[in-house]
Amino acid sequence: MTDLIPNLDGSSRIYAVFGDPIAQVQTPALINPLFAAAGRNLFAVPFHVTAAAFPATWDALAALPNIAGIGVTVPHKIAAAQRCDTLTDTAQAVGAVNSIQRDGEGRLHGALFDGVGFVAGLGDAADRLRNARVLMVGAGGAGRAIAHALAAAGVARLDLMDLSPQSIADTAAIANAAAGQEIAFPAEGGRFDHDVIVNASPIGLKGDARFPVPEAALEPGMLVADIAALGKITPLLEAARRRGCATSDGHDMLTAQIAIIAGFAAGLPAGTALVA
Amino acid sequence: MTDLIPNLDGSSRIYAVFGDPIAQVQTPALINPLFAAAGRNLFAVPFHVTAAAFPATWDALAALPNIAGIGVTVPHKIAAAQRCDTLTDTAQAVGAVNSIQRDGEGRLHGALFDGVGFVAGLGDAADRLRNARVLMVGAGGAGRAIAHALAAAGVARLDLMDLSPQSIADTAAIANAAAGQEIAFPAEGGRFDHDVIVNASPIGLKGDARFPVPEAALEPGMLVADIAALGKITPLLEAARRRGCATSDGHDMLTAQIAIIAGFAAGLPAGTALVA
Repeated sequence: MTDLIPNLDGSSRIYAVFGDPIAQVQTPALINPLFAAAGRNLFAVPFHVTAAAFPATWDALAALPNIAGIGVTVPHKIAAAQRCDTLTDTAQAVGAVNSIQRDGEGRLHGALFDGVGFVAGLGDAADRLRNARVLMVGAGGAGRAIAHALAAAGVARLDLMDLSPQSIADTAAIANAAAGQEIAFPAEGGRFDHDVIVNASPIGLKGDARFPVPEAALEPGMLVADIAALGKITPLLEAARRRGCATSDGHDMLTAQIAIIAGFAAGLPAGTALVA
Repeated sequence: MTDLIPNLDGSSRIYAVFGDPIAQVQTPALINPLFAAAGRNLFAVPFHVTAAAFPATWDALAALPNIAGIGVTVPHKIAAAQRCDTLTDTAQAVGAVNSIQRDGEGRLHGALFDGVGFVAGLGDAADRLRNARVLMVGAGGAGRAIAHALAAAGVARLDLMDLSPQSIADTAAIANAAAGQEIAFPAEGGRFDHDVIVNASPIGLKGDARFPVPEAALEPGMLVADIAALGKITPLLEAARRRGCATSDGHDMLTAQIAIIAGFAAGLPAGTALVA
């Protein structure tokens, strides 16, 4: 990023971003211009925190009055959830957080915005989720948050594919609990009668695995969302565009989520984007 | 400050500035433009750290690989010196640090730059210190560091005034040790045969106390340095200018010191200014 931002001063407040590794984490570069545009003297600052260093670093920074919040990424999302005073419904259901707001009394409120960020990143196409039949490939951390958000958005059915049957079962349970009824199932091989296809796995981003839905199964009326497509075009996204599907990529999700994280870090209610 | 600086990213390194209070601390605002001008992806970030929170905050941040160093101000200068792995001669002699460099192996090197910053801030007038007779008012923390630097600069005599006889004795001992001979003494009342007068006390910055050297004793050939004159003109500085003395103020010292702290935070040897 080459953007310029206002300088820090002694009264600046800090949104501390923890990760290991940290160098590739985009939150500071993306969120600081949002804080600046909104006139907040608030800065996201990266901290290279290993799993071993996490408890002491968390406890130390969470105690400081000018810490506005903490952002966490790999490998801290579950450990952080266990150290918050309150959790949003999504964070509670998934057992993970990625953004923590520190209130004026030092209490820590944890939220997980991967799912709402995903849905917000769909833009107008989010309307197509209600009553939709959805196939999601990938039932790991991001998949769980997205499954929770899809259930909250009213999808009719959520078919799940993952190499781990346990991950499928856990994610289905999260979606079913959020829906209040049984909507989520292991996907049946070879059946692709879906309105929405979601890639919440790393397929296409890294590794040689091919996406399990063949291009011929993609229909022009489908919405295809590929969160692995971040900074590159994945084969799935390419195929979806060739077939005339509506598409959404990882950048859409990231951009939408960053605005929501910015709002939370700035003290707004969970899920509220910070606007200039 | 309204300067703009480059944005942070995930690979940014941090110079953590600890203070209580912190809002008035100028280091971040002054030093970040120097880091930027030198092309360093390094940012000074303020942390509101109380004396009670100091040990845990220090230990946590000192362990993180992307912490380049720590800056400390009131009330942490002595406690920080006790937690460093190495100390510069000045820091060792005074028993205090204000800037800590973290090396690639995580070792912490403490320095105290108030004294060298004071001398560097005199500019060409620093040449006048050699063999000079100096009167310094104020033998507290800043005074001790300045006394050490004055001795290193070769002053012939250092007369000390302070409300605390113990502070005078301690500061004299520091100067005498640095000079390798007895050069520092309690000032004799009413004798003002000095080449250089230094105010290292808060007189003129806060409180109603009057500077103990009358205006009539200021001669045009004198150098008058007033570190309390920072963001305001003190009565001493005003009088010195009226009398035609060469002068130096707190801003000179601060500017010179910030460049030296920037160099140390950026990994340069202690005392080396960071240049663009």
